Amino acid sequence: MHFAGTLPLQSGAAIRAYDLAYETYGQLNADKSNAVLICHALNASHHVAGVYLDEAGRVKEKSEGWWDTMIGPGKPVDTNQFFVIGVNNLGSCFGSTGPMQLNPDTGEVYGADFPVVTVQDWVSAQARLLDALGIQTLAAVMGGSLGGMQALAWTLQYPDRVRHAVVVASAPNLTAENIAFNEVARRAIVTDPDFHGGHFYRHGVLPKRGLRIARMIGHITYLSDDVMNEKFGRQLRQAVELKPGAGERSAGPPQAGSAPSGGRALHEVTSVGAFKYSTQEVEFQIESYLRYQGDKFAEYFDANTYLLITRALDYFDPASAFGGDLSRALANASAKFLLVSFTTDWRFAPARSREIVKALLDNQRDVSYAEIDAPHGHDAFLLDDARYMGVVRSYFQSKVTP
Amino acid sequence: MHFAGTLPLQSGAAIRAYDLAYETYGQLNADKSNAVLICHALNASHHVAGVYLDEAGRVKEKSEGWWDTMIGPGKPVDTNQFFVIGVNNLGSCFGSTGPMQLNPDTGEVYGADFPVVTVQDWVSAQARLLDALGIQTLAAVMGGSLGGMQALAWTLQYPDRVRHAVVVASAPNLTAENIAFNEVARRAIVTDPDFHGGHFYRHGVLPKRGLRIARMIGHITYLSDDVMNEKFGRQLRQAVELKPGAGERSAGPPQAGSAPSGGRALHEVTSVGAFKYSTQEVEFQIESYLRYQGDKFAEYFDANTYLLITRALDYFDPASAFGGDLSRALANASAKFLLVSFTTDWRFAPARSREIVKALLDNQRDVSYAEIDAPHGHDAFLLDDARYMGVVRSYFQSKVTP
Repeated sequence: MHFAGTLPLQSGAAIRAYDLAYETYGQLNADKSNAVLICHALNASHHVAGVYLDEAGRVKEKSEGWWDTMIGPGKPVDTNQFFVIGVNNLGSCFGSTGPMQLNPDTGEVYGADFPVVTVQDWVSAQARLLDALGIQTLAAVMGGSLGGMQALAWTLQYPDRVRHAVVVASAPNLTAENIAFNEVARRAIVTDPDFHGGHFYRHGVLPKRGLRIARMIGHITYLSDDVMNEKFGRQLRQAVELKPGAGERSAGPPQAGSAPSGGRALHEVTSVGAFKYSTQEVEFQIESYLRYQGDKFAEYFDANTYLLITRALDYFDPASAFGGDLSRALANASAKFLLVSFTTDWRFAPARSREIVKALLDNQRDVSYAEIDAPHGHDAFLLDDARYMGVVRSYFQSKVTP
Repeated sequence: MHFAGTLPLQSGAAIRAYDLAYETYGQLNADKSNAVLICHALNASHHVAGVYLDEAGRVKEKSEGWWDTMIGPGKPVDTNQFFVIGVNNLGSCFGSTGPMQLNPDTGEVYGADFPVVTVQDWVSAQARLLDALGIQTLAAVMGGSLGGMQALAWTLQYPDRVRHAVVVASAPNLTAENIAFNEVARRAIVTDPDFHGGHFYRHGVLPKRGLRIARMIGHITYLSDDVMNEKFGRQLRQAVELKPGAGERSAGPPQAGSAPSGGRALHEVTSVGAFKYSTQEVEFQIESYLRYQGDKFAEYFDANTYLLITRALDYFDPASAFGGDLSRALANASAKFLLVSFTTDWRFAPARSREIVKALLDNQRDVSYAEIDAPHGHDAFLLDDARYMGVVRSYFQSKVTP
C-alpha cells in the first residue's frame, strides 16, 4: 500500500511518502468489525501465517508465516472468524519503506539517513493502513515482544479503535540490561569497517561481521539457560557432526521469527570428549549453532534496520511522560486485555508483564493474565506450546466477538 | 620466577621455558605451613593486595590489588598470620609468559601460536612455583570465578598439598549459556580485521573493536539486572553529563578486577527525557558506561590472552572424565572446603556452587557453604560486602590454622 501523505514522526522528522507491505488472512465481514492486527517483533515481517507456493503450485520449503501456529483456519486466532492483517513496519527490510530503499528527497538509498522511528510512529502508520482498508475499529491488536509494545501503544494512541489487546512476552519498557544488550549489538554493527557510517550500500559491501555478532547476542538472550543446557549442554561439535543437520533452527525472511525447530533431540548425541585445543575452531555444539545463526542472519537482514528496530525498543516507555507512573500512563486505555508471559523468559520476564497487569487493574480495566510455565525463554512466544495456544484460543472464543 | 624445564600441557603440546609473575604478602613461617595461594579470574593478575608506590614514595592512584578488600593485615585473609601468594597465569598479559612475548623456538612474538592452556596446566605451573619457594603444602588455595575453578582443580591434582580450598562464585563447569557468551566475545575479536589471525603484533595494530565488544558483553554478564537498574536504569546520558565522572568504574592492569566503584549514586540524577533520536549516538547512561569500559579494556588487554582465558573456562569440567558424575570426580579431593555464592549471580549461579557442595558431601568431605544475599551479580565476589567478608574471616579464623 502506497501512502502519498507525509507521516510526521515522534522525533520531529517526517517521511514524505512510503509503502507498507501487508498480508491479510480470512474475510473482512460486512460491518468491518472482525479485523485483528498483528504487530511483529525484531526480525519478523508481515508474513504472519500461511505458506507461499512456487510457480508449480507446490508449498515452498520453510515458507510458513512466523506465527502460523497461532493464526489460521481453526487455530487460536481463527481466520474462519477473523480478518487478520499482518503489516511490516516502517524501517524494516522486508518490503515496507526502509533504509535499503531510495530517499525521494535525494534519489539515493536512505542508509543511515532513514529517520529514527518509534513504536508510536509504527502505530500511526498502521492506523493509516487501517483507514485505507476502511477499518475503523479493531476486534483485537496483538503482538509478542516488541509486537506487544505496539499492541499496548495502540490502546493509548487510538483507544477508541481497539476492543482487545493481546500483549505476549512484552514489557512496559526495556530494563538497563536489555538496553545494554541492544547497545553491544549496535556497536558490533557500527564499528564493523564495512558499515561506513551506515552508507555501506554505496560501497558495495555489507557489515556482516557486526550483524553476525548482533544476532549471536540476540539468540543467547532469546533462549533460557535451561533450554540451552538441554539442547546443547556441553556437547562437542565433533560428536554432532555424526548427525548432520541436528540443531538447525529455521529462520529467515520472511517466513520465521527466531523459534528453534522442534523435534531433533540433541541430547541423544553423546559427547566423545576429545578437544581440539583451539581458541578459534568450533569445539562445542552451541558455538556451531550460534555461528550458523549469525551467518544466516547476516545474509538477509539489513544493518540499518537492526539499529532502527533496537532503538525503537529502547525508546518505548509510555510511563515516561507520567513521571514513570505506569498506572497514570495506562489510564487512557479502554481496551480489554490479555497478557501472557513465560516463566523462563529473562529478556521480558513475567514480572514485567505483571507491571502492566497491575497498572491496568489500578484503572479498573478488564485484564486476563496467563503466566505459562515453559522452558524456552523469550522464544516461547513463537512456539507451539499447548497451554499457551489454549489460553489465546479461549480468550478469542469467549471474549473477542467479531 | 623463571622456569627452565619444559611444562607439558593438557593438549599434548608443551612450553619449553617460561616465567611466572608473582607477588607475596606477609611472612612465610618457619615450617612453611602458612602459605595461601590466590588464583585469579579472567582479567586480573598476581597483584592481589596492597598498593604500589611511585618514585616519590606516594601511593599510586588506583593501584590497589584486585582483592585488597579481602587480603592484608587484619583483613579476612590476614597477612599478619598468612603468607599470601598471588600468581599471574601462563598466557596472561600481565607479566607471566604469554602471547605477547617471544617464542624461544622462533624468535618471534607468540601471538596465535601460544599453546592453549587449561586450568589443569595453570595448576601444574603454580605447583612448580610452590616447589621453587620450598612450600610443600598450602594452608589454603583460594579464588573466585575462574580462580575458584583453579582452587577446585588444586584439590584434585595435588590433594596432599592443599589443606583448605576456598571456592567463591564458581562452578564445576560452564553452562551452554556461559560458553555461548564466551564464543560471541571470541568471534568479535577473531573477526576484527585488525586481528590478523592472532598475529596482529606483526602488523602494528590491535583488534580493539573486537576487544571492546568482548568487554561490553562481559560486563553485562558480571552485573545483575537489579544492580543495573539501580545504577543506570533508563537514565539518559544527557542528564548525567551534568555530573561528570558519575558511574565510573575502576579497572585496569593490574590493580583491579571488574568491580564497580562504590558510592556515587546515579539514581540521584533525574532523567530529563529528551532523546536525540539517533541510532549511533549515546542516549542512555548504560550505553556510555559500557562504551567507556570497552574502550578502557581494549587499551590494556591482549586479544590472544582473552581467547586463551575464555577457552580455559570452557574446557574446565572435572566430571567429564567420570561420565559427568561430579561426586566420583571429587572423590580424590581431601581438602576441607569453603564455598561461597551470591544470590544474584546469574553467570555462576548459587545452584552451581551447590552442585559442588553436594558432590563433596557425597564423599563425606568437610564443607562449609555460604550463599550471600547480594544485589551485585557475579561482580559481588570482588566487592566489600560485610557478610561475605565476615564468612571468609570466620572460616580462616576458626578452621585454617597456619
